[in-house]
Amino acid sequence: MRDVVICGVGMTPVGEHWDSSLREIGADAVQLALKDAGLDTVDALYVGNAFGATFSSQSNVSALIADYAGLGGVEAIGIDAADASGGAALRTGYLAVASGLVDTVMVVGAEKSTDAIGSARVAARSVGLDADYEAVHGATLTALAGLLMRRYMYENGLELPAFEGFSINAHRNAKPNALAMFRNQIKEGAFARASMVSDPVNLFDGAPDADGAAAVILTASERARRMNQPAVRIAGSGAATDTFSIQERRDPLRFRAVELSAQRAFGQAGILPGEVDLLEAHDAFTIFSVLSLEASGFASRGEGWKLAQNAGEALSLKGSLPISTFGGLKARGNPVGATGVYQAVEAVLQLRGQAGGNQVANARTAVIQSVGGAAATAFTHVLTTR
Amino acid sequence: MRDVVICGVGMTPVGEHWDSSLREIGADAVQLALKDAGLDTVDALYVGNAFGATFSSQSNVSALIADYAGLGGVEAIGIDAADASGGAALRTGYLAVASGLVDTVMVVGAEKSTDAIGSARVAARSVGLDADYEAVHGATLTALAGLLMRRYMYENGLELPAFEGFSINAHRNAKPNALAMFRNQIKEGAFARASMVSDPVNLFDGAPDADGAAAVILTASERARRMNQPAVRIAGSGAATDTFSIQERRDPLRFRAVELSAQRAFGQAGILPGEVDLLEAHDAFTIFSVLSLEASGFASRGEGWKLAQNAGEALSLKGSLPISTFGGLKARGNPVGATGVYQAVEAVLQLRGQAGGNQVANARTAVIQSVGGAAATAFTHVLTTR
Repeated sequence: MRDVVICGVGMTPVGEHWDSSLREIGADAVQLALKDAGLDTVDALYVGNAFGATFSSQSNVSALIADYAGLGGVEAIGIDAADASGGAALRTGYLAVASGLVDTVMVVGAEKSTDAIGSARVAARSVGLDADYEAVHGATLTALAGLLMRRYMYENGLELPAFEGFSINAHRNAKPNALAMFRNQIKEGAFARASMVSDPVNLFDGAPDADGAAAVILTASERARRMNQPAVRIAGSGAATDTFSIQERRDPLRFRAVELSAQRAFGQAGILPGEVDLLEAHDAFTIFSVLSLEASGFASRGEGWKLAQNAGEALSLKGSLPISTFGGLKARGNPVGATGVYQAVEAVLQLRGQAGGNQVANARTAVIQSVGGAAATAFTHVLTTR
Repeated sequence: MRDVVICGVGMTPVGEHWDSSLREIGADAVQLALKDAGLDTVDALYVGNAFGATFSSQSNVSALIADYAGLGGVEAIGIDAADASGGAALRTGYLAVASGLVDTVMVVGAEKSTDAIGSARVAARSVGLDADYEAVHGATLTALAGLLMRRYMYENGLELPAFEGFSINAHRNAKPNALAMFRNQIKEGAFARASMVSDPVNLFDGAPDADGAAAVILTASERARRMNQPAVRIAGSGAATDTFSIQERRDPLRFRAVELSAQRAFGQAGILPGEVDLLEAHDAFTIFSVLSLEASGFASRGEGWKLAQNAGEALSLKGSLPISTFGGLKARGNPVGATGVYQAVEAVLQLRGQAGGNQVANARTAVIQSVGGAAATAFTHVLTTR
């Protein structure tokens, strides 16, 4: 296999973009990444997208964006792993370049997930769950997160304020990020009083679905020496699934897919959790952050919540384990199938020292995690300049 | 890169399976392929599927099938390239094994495309087209094929009977295939009298959408020596896109994506069209077969139709270029996102000499082609035992 690096990145603002279509934001991200890398084109385009068919009546999004972005003739493949589509697209691109058969791959995450309302939106959004045994009975991802959070609170004797640090930190980090959806701040104490969405998940707990597109260009390390930007190496890539539905898992509070994917990625990179300078966790809900921290070895079972105490101090840009450094899913916003690629772009900017007001000092090793459904599938990548 | 071989195959009957779900047929194909290869599990599962979200309200099909098939913990990625999803999944698996990072990949194509009727079916089926400029105006893939066929007939001075050989040959080859959807025969002269669907595409011209699942297991060639079955090598893999919509192409009768993908695959494999023992073309419509034959170098511009004269004699199992050897999309049936994997299974059976009543004598090199939308994207693979 060849060593694979990221040599170009781009991302568009995250929000509700009712006047832009999937192909437009996807092509915008492609152009930004080409410019960053100093390239005119690439050999392949892999696009992570979760909801094109249901929100935009559009599949084959990869071929559509390839055409609209002017990448004439390029190979194009669409990638779906529900909410983890971005992480899955990154892994697909990584394997392609590593194979030696494709020299330069554009990995895009593109999502439009706000162009529907009411029950149509719930139905369009819930295709990532089990259609026959979850969604058909009215379960939503937020409802499933609520069940997990309630169980976690019960087992560990916790109340809502225990989780506030995750959201306070996310919004704090979104403030300097001009591309973030929510740059307002959450005051200490406000979290527990927020409107309930799916008890105990409330409005300040769950991340907002959003529109957005991001892109990273992967190439072989020996090719990156001639590029515009310092190369960031993909040192580890891990993917895993779990029993699809939480109600069929022996231990619902163990995110087994996250655990396995982290073990595989950390093992390949040869790093331990203590060597990670920053983590882009899949903070779609605070309980997802808690269980991912535990599954990835950053905290012991039942103790992930402790990292977020004191308004998330330890998780802040100056803390021992910075997470959601540009606002995370919670405050940067969650353009679902694009989120995993946003994480990659943000981690690259951190490792290049180009993160501006979001910079984590001396960042050398970053971990990004993309989680699909109620952790039915997960992708972990280790990025490094070491 | 590592040499990649197919070491196990499986496929389920093609038809309208209203009593089976996507996960069930997918898991069936997985089990058949594992049994054929003599394996208990694999390292990764890549699933090509075009319509899970629209026909079954189900995305993340790969993680769902991984769980249901008992492949606990395995990496899973869903692949979409519209009608070419099967070919795209095969390429993704090929690149993964070639990289040296994944040892054994199960590539599945699974589709349920009959669980909707009327306008809901048309809408669910048309997500592979351009939603904003084609589908929204009522264009269907069949309608676009009709436009291409009419133009081809006009430019080359042809009438409907010129195309009948493709369909006669497909149905002739489906007869010995117990898994085929349509095993009835089309008599000479009947083609031109069939009911019109989208003029000039008629009922005997277009392939029937269907349900079905197929699987191939890929591994590195050095690992295949210990397996149950003789290994079939993937000698070439090519992928390409074209301008997405036919109305924006300078030359609509040139299937540029097919042309580029064939050039790339043939070039990698180091073969010429004349060395191909059988071709599984994407015969969703006879005009697709004609234009693919021309784009791939099997016929000159404007002459692809000539190969099908005399009831498709040259394309028959004993002809100079056997195509649709198990019935093709036309008569085996077209389980859309699964079709590209059915082609791979059928080609492997041919190259192993296990094709029974469908056997092409002394088959050593097979080409399979998967075409998405109105040839917006294409994947060509060269399989060989040479």
